[in-house]
Amino acid sequence: MAVKMSAQELTEFAEEVFPQVKGDFIVEEVRDMAVRLRMPVAEKHLRPGGTVSGPSMFALADCAVYFAVLAMIGPKALAVTTNCSLDFMRKPEAGRDLIAECRLLKLGKLLAVGDVLIYSDGREAPVARSTMTYAIPPE
Amino acid sequence: MAVKMSAQELTEFAEEVFPQVKGDFIVEEVRDMAVRLRMPVAEKHLRPGGTVSGPSMFALADCAVYFAVLAMIGPKALAVTTNCSLDFMRKPEAGRDLIAECRLLKLGKLLAVGDVLIYSDGREAPVARSTMTYAIPPE
Amino acid sequence: MAVKMSAQELTEFAEEVFPQVKGDFIVEEVRDMAVRLRMPVAEKHLRPGGTVSGPSMFALADCAVYFAVLAMIGPKALAVTTNCSLDFMRKPEAGRDLIAECRLLKLGKLLAVGDVLIYSDGREAPVARSTMTYAIPPE
Amino acid sequence: MAVKMSAQELTEFAEEVFPQVKGDFIVEEVRDMAVRLRMPVAEKHLRPGGTVSGPSMFALADCAVYFAVLAMIGPKALAVTTNCSLDFMRKPEAGRDLIAECRLLKLGKLLAVGDVLIYSDGREAPVARSTMTYAIPPE
Repeated sequence: MAVKMSAQELTEFAEEVFPQVKGDFIVEEVRDMAVRLRMPVAEKHLRPGGTVSGPSMFALADCAVYFAVLAMIGPKALAVTTNCSLDFMRKPEAGRDLIAECRLLKLGKLLAVGDVLIYSDGREAPVARSTMTYAIPPE
Repeated sequence: MAVKMSAQELTEFAEEVFPQVKGDFIVEEVRDMAVRLRMPVAEKHLRPGGTVSGPSMFALADCAVYFAVLAMIGPKALAVTTNCSLDFMRKPEAGRDLIAECRLLKLGKLLAVGDVLIYSDGREAPVARSTMTYAIPPE
Repeated sequence: MAVKMSAQELTEFAEEVFPQVKGDFIVEEVRDMAVRLRMPVAEKHLRPGGTVSGPSMFALADCAVYFAVLAMIGPKALAVTTNCSLDFMRKPEAGRDLIAECRLLKLGKLLAVGDVLIYSDGREAPVARSTMTYAIPPE
Repeated sequence: MAVKMSAQELTEFAEEVFPQVKGDFIVEEVRDMAVRLRMPVAEKHLRPGGTVSGPSMFALADCAVYFAVLAMIGPKALAVTTNCSLDFMRKPEAGRDLIAECRLLKLGKLLAVGDVLIYSDGREAPVARSTMTYAIPPE
């Protein structure tokens, strides 16, 4: 399948339809059925203990799968998450961005399933993993 | 087991250790192994289509289990989420607060498991469900 | 919504289309959007430590949601599980049957979501919980 | 970390402690933090529509993570699954064995997390994915 949206197009589309998250995520790479996102970690993402909060990591994983789906099917703002699982495995390192590596395992007409591994930038062991199912709106 | 923290105490503790989320959640009720939270829905929680975003619902569910655990074990800021599953089942209604009903299914020495149902205020059918596992820090 | 299949009809249908599991589960009750199943625990369900194996509990939860869906929509053998989450919280007691209490949280045209709590017969604390999503075949 | 059990040792250990599943799974490869299992598909694994049943795929994923953990920590029969998520994405092909590729994402003192992709032998697109958390018994 051909990729339908570039990193630049995904970023502009997201800023238009989700102005709330403007600047939260940087699309670093778009490949066939895969994207890499960077989340510059800021004060608002932290929780007690100096670690990144669960909701911030959920948002990163969710956004990664959303962008991976849009990259393949084109701009459809109304694709919605129907299911998610998330494992928080290690404490993210303070002062390092988070990197999400997402690949789509399934891209059907109605449902897409994407897997995400989240890393502290420059580290090998993942801090979290997630799987998200998206329902794709009919044409 | 006796409840160790009241709604008022949970709120004050959260505002102290999580100043970022101040005002985001209202503890409406604390019972043995259970809490009810209200999330006043604001512009920042919305996504395209006028619905509440996934990360906002994750944050509500996560916070509900966190508060239910703290209510039973007392103020321990460092309890951390290790696993979560979430099903988004219906579109939340615009203009209605979200209500999270959480009950703890397990409260062990190391792990606690809580189930959450999320409703649009005043409606019977849940918009989402979630299960969260928390790791409890040793004494 | 009206229940379309009784406990007796569900049992007969299951024995016809799933002869492999004949006798594994007893439908104890069918209500609106809910069923209760009993799994008589046998040697084949056990694992080291004398506890019931994970796959046996998965099968019980899966079957409970399947029956709850069929009870509402009528006999459709081809409904399939698309997603599942499972938390194993306590060791089932040796020598006690397992009881699954299932309720459907959503019954849409395409997807159904059911929640299951599994108990050792006669005990109050659940040994496991599960959520299953079923895809419903179009007419 | 060094692998502590070979494919042969894992197979013999499993047959000793789980005689119920003897012959159900073949350990094809053991690597650092990873194993590959084959499930020869038999009549008992099938469900209506000629596809492999959910419980059979759960058992395969569960066993793959169990073996991957044992390969690294040595024979401890009492490691138990505490949490699982499973996505069933495609219908397994009739007449083809299932292959499970498992890698451990975390191997802590108390908890291990493993990711599994399940394939119909010889096909590229996975039929299912799963994540399992195992609690490791203290020394």
